[in-house]
Amino acid sequence: MDVNDAKATKRAHGLETQRALLAAAGAVFSRMAYADARLKDIAEEAGISQGSLYFHFGNKDDVARAVLSVQQERMGQVLTTVQELAGSALDCILGLFEGLADLIATDELVQAGIRLSMQPATGLEVDSSAPYVEWVEVAASILRGGVADGSMAPDLDVRAAAELLNEIFVGAQVLSGLEDKWASLPRRVASARAGIRTVLTSSTRAA
Amino acid sequence: MDVNDAKATKRAHGLETQRALLAAAGAVFSRMAYADARLKDIAEEAGISQGSLYFHFGNKDDVARAVLSVQQERMGQVLTTVQELAGSALDCILGLFEGLADLIATDELVQAGIRLSMQPATGLEVDSSAPYVEWVEVAASILRGGVADGSMAPDLDVRAAAELLNEIFVGAQVLSGLEDKWASLPRRVASARAGIRTVLTSSTRAA
Repeated sequence: MDVNDAKATKRAHGLETQRALLAAAGAVFSRMAYADARLKDIAEEAGISQGSLYFHFGNKDDVARAVLSVQQERMGQVLTTVQELAGSALDCILGLFEGLADLIATDELVQAGIRLSMQPATGLEVDSSAPYVEWVEVAASILRGGVADGSMAPDLDVRAAAELLNEIFVGAQVLSGLEDKWASLPRRVASARAGIRTVLTSSTRAA
Repeated sequence: MDVNDAKATKRAHGLETQRALLAAAGAVFSRMAYADARLKDIAEEAGISQGSLYFHFGNKDDVARAVLSVQQERMGQVLTTVQELAGSALDCILGLFEGLADLIATDELVQAGIRLSMQPATGLEVDSSAPYVEWVEVAASILRGGVADGSMAPDLDVRAAAELLNEIFVGAQVLSGLEDKWASLPRRVASARAGIRTVLTSSTRAA
């Protein structure tokens, strides 16, 4: 094995360890409050030494930030996939809701990210409302597309509808999280589908 | 002063202290995570001795339960007031949203209750999803009234619409909580009003 091969193997091993650590952090943050979780718990969950953990993450906040970053990345991937597949903008926004619901219901790391961003007073230095502002912008952009492609009402109040969609999704997420750790989120989104379609396609002008 | 007067004075004084303690608990639970709050902090905030606090509440969970109970009571009062004033069921549900938004935006004890019920792993022995299930039942009951009094669509899917309304309210509550400690909740509810009205009054049957 030459030097480059050895380096590549080491790098691959490092990435593998990092993934295992993030999965372990997700499991730990799902099990206990962020304030109570210790790096030791994450190392034990991952089956590695604390020394090895410190090689990847300096402190607990680094781990939390990495979890939040992976959460945003995976949610962003759903958006990309849906935008590639969807026909109309209306299909796109409904597909986005379904895709995100499936992701959140099944991905423990994404669930850990949600828990972190919902915990007040974690001492974690992140602006937890920033991602939600971004998702309103994403929705508003899709809705403007829906007015343009005719799949939504021509006089849709894009800003108000985008905020409403965000509220519906966040509410469904929070309620399913309390109810059964997000297992019922896909059912909730499916049940909301007809109402969302009505809001987006009904003209507010008197006929 | 006879014995009965003395008893009444003592009881009034006791109630006053209990109210001061709950207000103090609300302030403390708004400022720090439940897990970090100590009875000492609440006694200091209220300006009374820890001994006096123990006379009213045996432990931190007792205080938290009392806060949650006052929250539910005040939210229930909004429902009663709105039901007495409102004309149609549609007015009633829109008025309920507005009334609850105003309460949450301004009442620190209600805010403390919301914080408590949203914190995972507090060790608090309450089923935090139970009040939400109750509010879906309240909404469903008003919506059945709206189908009956003609202020809503005759073929409204009451169950789905009640869940959607609950999701909208909880989402608006959570997002305004993250954004500016609920100050923007009344604005969010006002902005959602047209969409909610559309969902409740649009017939899903093809015209």
